[in-house]
Amino acid sequence: MSAVADTIRNGVDTERMYATLDLIKQQPELATFQFRATNRWLGGAHNRSTIQSFYAAGGEDTTREAAFDLDAGEPAILLGADTGPNPAESLLHALAACLTTSIVYVAAARKVELTSVESTLTGDMDVRGALGVDPEPRNGFERIGVSFRVSGHAPAEKLREIVERAKARSAVYDMVTNGVPVAVDVTTD
Amino acid sequence: MSAVADTIRNGVDTERMYATLDLIKQQPELATFQFRATNRWLGGAHNRSTIQSFYAAGGEDTTREAAFDLDAGEPAILLGADTGPNPAESLLHALAACLTTSIVYVAAARKVELTSVESTLTGDMDVRGALGVDPEPRNGFERIGVSFRVSGHAPAEKLREIVERAKARSAVYDMVTNGVPVAVDVTTD
Repeated sequence: MSAVADTIRNGVDTERMYATLDLIKQQPELATFQFRATNRWLGGAHNRSTIQSFYAAGGEDTTREAAFDLDAGEPAILLGADTGPNPAESLLHALAACLTTSIVYVAAARKVELTSVESTLTGDMDVRGALGVDPEPRNGFERIGVSFRVSGHAPAEKLREIVERAKARSAVYDMVTNGVPVAVDVTTD
Repeated sequence: MSAVADTIRNGVDTERMYATLDLIKQQPELATFQFRATNRWLGGAHNRSTIQSFYAAGGEDTTREAAFDLDAGEPAILLGADTGPNPAESLLHALAACLTTSIVYVAAARKVELTSVESTLTGDMDVRGALGVDPEPRNGFERIGVSFRVSGHAPAEKLREIVERAKARSAVYDMVTNGVPVAVDVTTD
């Protein structure tokens, strides 16, 4: 195996990973990031977020060549026309994606080659809350269930440890389980 | 204006909205919903969620004719190849989309015609947490800022009230600000 191939594990360049971690240890001010999204209403339950710019490692990051557009919608039963996944489903995607990437990165750092990571997420909701029909149920999911199936070249115990470590480091898992302060301001014209 | 046109406000069929609310008031068991996502790792920071089936109003909802695929990725500085928005950005999208749809639905219910709803969201993060470099910073955003610009045929005060009511009813705003219990199980093979 060549030196270059050896540094890539699970599709992650581990040499760059270690260099990034070392740099941030030495210069903690580089760890300040800001991610952003802009959103525009397109009619009914249809709206679209555009995601491109972000601040990272001491300046605006300009490496992202194109924006990502994400459409939202609601199914017919929630008065939409299925123009996109609904917002609560998008939150499940954010959680699945973050846990999965965390598993892959942790495995790469621990020299474990993965062959497959799949997950199924469920979110249970009493829609009386969000619809304002009853003040008792909360608006969001009462609970989220995540089922991972992980395969790789390591004993089951090691793979489970990797998932535990990924939970302990995942940005979205932290936000969804612990909450985040959100400040909303409004301009009208 | 015809009777049909009159029932549609902001692209929302208000007659169906009131009928849905009445039905759920009468049969609260219909308010039990479950949303779902499945996710598969595609290499490195690239993974993809597929979203289609959901349970609603007493049974599996089969009206959604196609699945939505959502790709995730990371920018180069976080060792990815920009295969999609990163998971934390997808969470900002979920929040923007939910607040926006809530604003539109609340306005429709209150007979306020909107002309524009735009928002910009920011999430500030010290990546030392998620990277495991320092135990002090949290993994997720320290704070999220949401700036709405709302225009419509109503006084500014009324538009602000609509945004306040939307915050009080939004499923994702509830989840992101208050957190949700998440249960993770793992199968290895």
